[in-house]
Amino acid sequence: MDLATAEPCIFVIHGATGDLARRKLVPALSNGLEKKRIHPRTIVLGVGRKSGLSDESLRNSMLEALAAAGLEVGGETGAFWKENLYYQAVPDGSRDSYKDLRTRIEALESEFDLPGNRVFYLALPPQAFRDVIGGLGKAGLNDAKGWTRLVIEKPFGHDLKSALELNDFVHEFFQESQIYRIDHYLGKETVQNLLVFRFANSLFEPLWNRDRVESVQITVAESLGIGSRAGYYDSAGVLRDMVQNHITQLLALAFMEVPAAFEANAIRQEKAKLLRAVEPIGAEDVVFGRYGAGMTDGKKVPGYLEEKGIPNDSRTATFVALRLRIANWRWHGVPFIIRTGKRLPRRVSQIAVSFRCPPVSIFQPHDQCTIHSNVLLVTLQPDEGFDIHFEVKTPGQAIGMQTEALHFRYAEAFQPLPDAYETLLEDVVLGDQTLFVHADEVEAAWRLYTPVLERPADPFQYAAGTWGPEEADRLLSGTQNGWITK
Amino acid sequence: MDLATAEPCIFVIHGATGDLARRKLVPALSNGLEKKRIHPRTIVLGVGRKSGLSDESLRNSMLEALAAAGLEVGGETGAFWKENLYYQAVPDGSRDSYKDLRTRIEALESEFDLPGNRVFYLALPPQAFRDVIGGLGKAGLNDAKGWTRLVIEKPFGHDLKSALELNDFVHEFFQESQIYRIDHYLGKETVQNLLVFRFANSLFEPLWNRDRVESVQITVAESLGIGSRAGYYDSAGVLRDMVQNHITQLLALAFMEVPAAFEANAIRQEKAKLLRAVEPIGAEDVVFGRYGAGMTDGKKVPGYLEEKGIPNDSRTATFVALRLRIANWRWHGVPFIIRTGKRLPRRVSQIAVSFRCPPVSIFQPHDQCTIHSNVLLVTLQPDEGFDIHFEVKTPGQAIGMQTEALHFRYAEAFQPLPDAYETLLEDVVLGDQTLFVHADEVEAAWRLYTPVLERPADPFQYAAGTWGPEEADRLLSGTQNGWITK
Repeated sequence: MDLATAEPCIFVIHGATGDLARRKLVPALSNGLEKKRIHPRTIVLGVGRKSGLSDESLRNSMLEALAAAGLEVGGETGAFWKENLYYQAVPDGSRDSYKDLRTRIEALESEFDLPGNRVFYLALPPQAFRDVIGGLGKAGLNDAKGWTRLVIEKPFGHDLKSALELNDFVHEFFQESQIYRIDHYLGKETVQNLLVFRFANSLFEPLWNRDRVESVQITVAESLGIGSRAGYYDSAGVLRDMVQNHITQLLALAFMEVPAAFEANAIRQEKAKLLRAVEPIGAEDVVFGRYGAGMTDGKKVPGYLEEKGIPNDSRTATFVALRLRIANWRWHGVPFIIRTGKRLPRRVSQIAVSFRCPPVSIFQPHDQCTIHSNVLLVTLQPDEGFDIHFEVKTPGQAIGMQTEALHFRYAEAFQPLPDAYETLLEDVVLGDQTLFVHADEVEAAWRLYTPVLERPADPFQYAAGTWGPEEADRLLSGTQNGWITK
Repeated sequence: MDLATAEPCIFVIHGATGDLARRKLVPALSNGLEKKRIHPRTIVLGVGRKSGLSDESLRNSMLEALAAAGLEVGGETGAFWKENLYYQAVPDGSRDSYKDLRTRIEALESEFDLPGNRVFYLALPPQAFRDVIGGLGKAGLNDAKGWTRLVIEKPFGHDLKSALELNDFVHEFFQESQIYRIDHYLGKETVQNLLVFRFANSLFEPLWNRDRVESVQITVAESLGIGSRAGYYDSAGVLRDMVQNHITQLLALAFMEVPAAFEANAIRQEKAKLLRAVEPIGAEDVVFGRYGAGMTDGKKVPGYLEEKGIPNDSRTATFVALRLRIANWRWHGVPFIIRTGKRLPRRVSQIAVSFRCPPVSIFQPHDQCTIHSNVLLVTLQPDEGFDIHFEVKTPGQAIGMQTEALHFRYAEAFQPLPDAYETLLEDVVLGDQTLFVHADEVEAAWRLYTPVLERPADPFQYAAGTWGPEEADRLLSGTQNGWITK
């Protein structure tokens, strides 16, 4: 397949001195340049509040960041960052400062003979979104000779009301077709491959329904705690941090209907449709947890309430297990059990699809489920791959069975996979919205989780380094397997 | 699962001084003894034409054979063969000689206080079957205080008429429930596992039909030539040597309907039913081949007509490709392509099930089959295992796909698999006919292939070390893949 070639553009990073820009965006752009997927005549304009920062010092700082990421800082790529990176301060967010930004952009476009294509990347905390979007819009930076694209980092809203308001506000200045809401999970190769897995293989799609699937488990486990993000985390909590965005996107991609085409709107429409079919989540279908002191990765670690910056009376959850039901023809009656948390035994993201047991066991007619059910395990990280647990005959006289796995690991076939941000930035420049979240999806997700957020629920305690509170086990009741991811 | 314990018996081997007895039967019994699946009070009575062979010299000769096979000849097993093996000559096949055999058996049973269970194993060329069966029957050895079981080596008949006659003849003296027709392919763990694979896994059975399967290929390739068996092979040919028995059994087991129980008659009934549903094979659906000189395993080898003992004007085929159609609801319209031969590039037995392409490619709407079809590859030997060829996304920007494999190898999970004869002999002693061929199956198979054998057809030439004559390729026409096994 041909690679589309990106057009030259000016790539404006709001929050250029921040962590995300240094750790993710600049390295991703750099890799894209090397692979000739980002046009070499691209101009990167860093924007920040800091006045008096020179182009030169931003350039040096970014070269250091690239070196720290183990990337090329000599040769063409180094030359690119020394010549094509600029800095513009927007010190007070005033109308004038945005006019200055516009003047600077137009000057750079004219100097480098650019076609007027513009990316505005909001690598900023969510409190800053409105000011910048408004500033850009009011300065007329929502439209140009070429295309204009606005990239918004998560979180997009903190509940349904705020998400609706933010969408309304963004839509005052930008059209949905210009808006790229980032969920970096969607940039992961393994997540994208879910689409190929489902729709380029005839083997699995006939099994992908309530007749064949008994239950689904989605696990996104982290062994880390909250690190230095106490302030953010304590106000967000696990549902906003992981479920409303990443896990809901996984759910939607993996279990939506077949889209009409491999095309952004067709896919995003199916995702939103699936999310709208999820039934309201009752209190009995949610178990929150909060880690206490324990061991992870062989080290003693403090409990959440002992973490620096967490108030003693915090009720924030660091773990949640949910049981979702999808009220459509394909999935009615199949429990979808979601589990995510911090300070779990290991970092792993998996989707486990358990198939129904054979309707009849010809081997032991009176005891059906000594046969284990088949399980398809999709591992998204780490050690990305697919496993199918199936029954084989134990060699020897009697008909004994044991569960073994058909397996495929990406590492067998491919070089290390590209970083999610690399994929996503290239898509922005190419104008492909497939892997970005549509307003409808954001709203559908918030519509689902906001009632859960608004219902007071104290988290159950679990020891760091365990799979969450035991109370979560009851969400499995009535399903044929225990937790698949262990 | 509990292992059934075999009862003590007298195990009579007709053809005790022959190759099969030494190379397969005695080692298999020896392994069965060590694993406590053959009862230690079993008495083995070797029978042959040779007069004047002492028990002692047969014992020594078998101990040599065991040592040559790398098996234990000291300890309990060695002691067994030194004490429990006897020889009885049946020099002329006369009534009297069979009376003598009966007297000897009764004497041994009495001496060792055996319950009167008897196995008569015909490790003999097919010309000898009638005499021995008649001899046993007329001497009243078809019935005893315990059970009596008759084990008949392949080939069972050489066409429909001879098979019917032989069945009639055997049934004069023995009941079908006493008759164990050997097809050693059925003793292979990987062949038996086909049943577990199909009926203990819910993942594959819903796909196992004409709606999902596009075509099936069964390949049984040998790299060897005819070795020292020129006389047998030139009169038998490839269809009798491999297709009528082994491959037809594979076909039946892998593609029959679900049996009512995991039980000999239920399974054999389904196999016979499948075979009866195979449509008559037209001349256009058969391509015969005969190897010419060439290279296999890195060595120059002569052509078939140059082999020692093969007449210059032989028309015997060493390769055949067949296209079968099964006229039942499950398989109507799915081509089953069988290919087997000598002096092919490597030794391999595989069943390849090609699934239909996705009905629509959402990735490339106007060019459906740039997506490769999924293939399930069951490898029966060597390197036994399962592979599922499926499409994954090639990492990177554009939606590219490539075929990779989910794989499982027996060697990952199990110690070396037991020899087929070990399994089969244990089944004989346990009285389990599941892995033996019923009269109905033999007749159905001959009914299918006899018209092909009776139709004159000169074989096409192929060079040793290639996959047979090019003419065989036309049998693939209209199917979506080329030869899967290569």
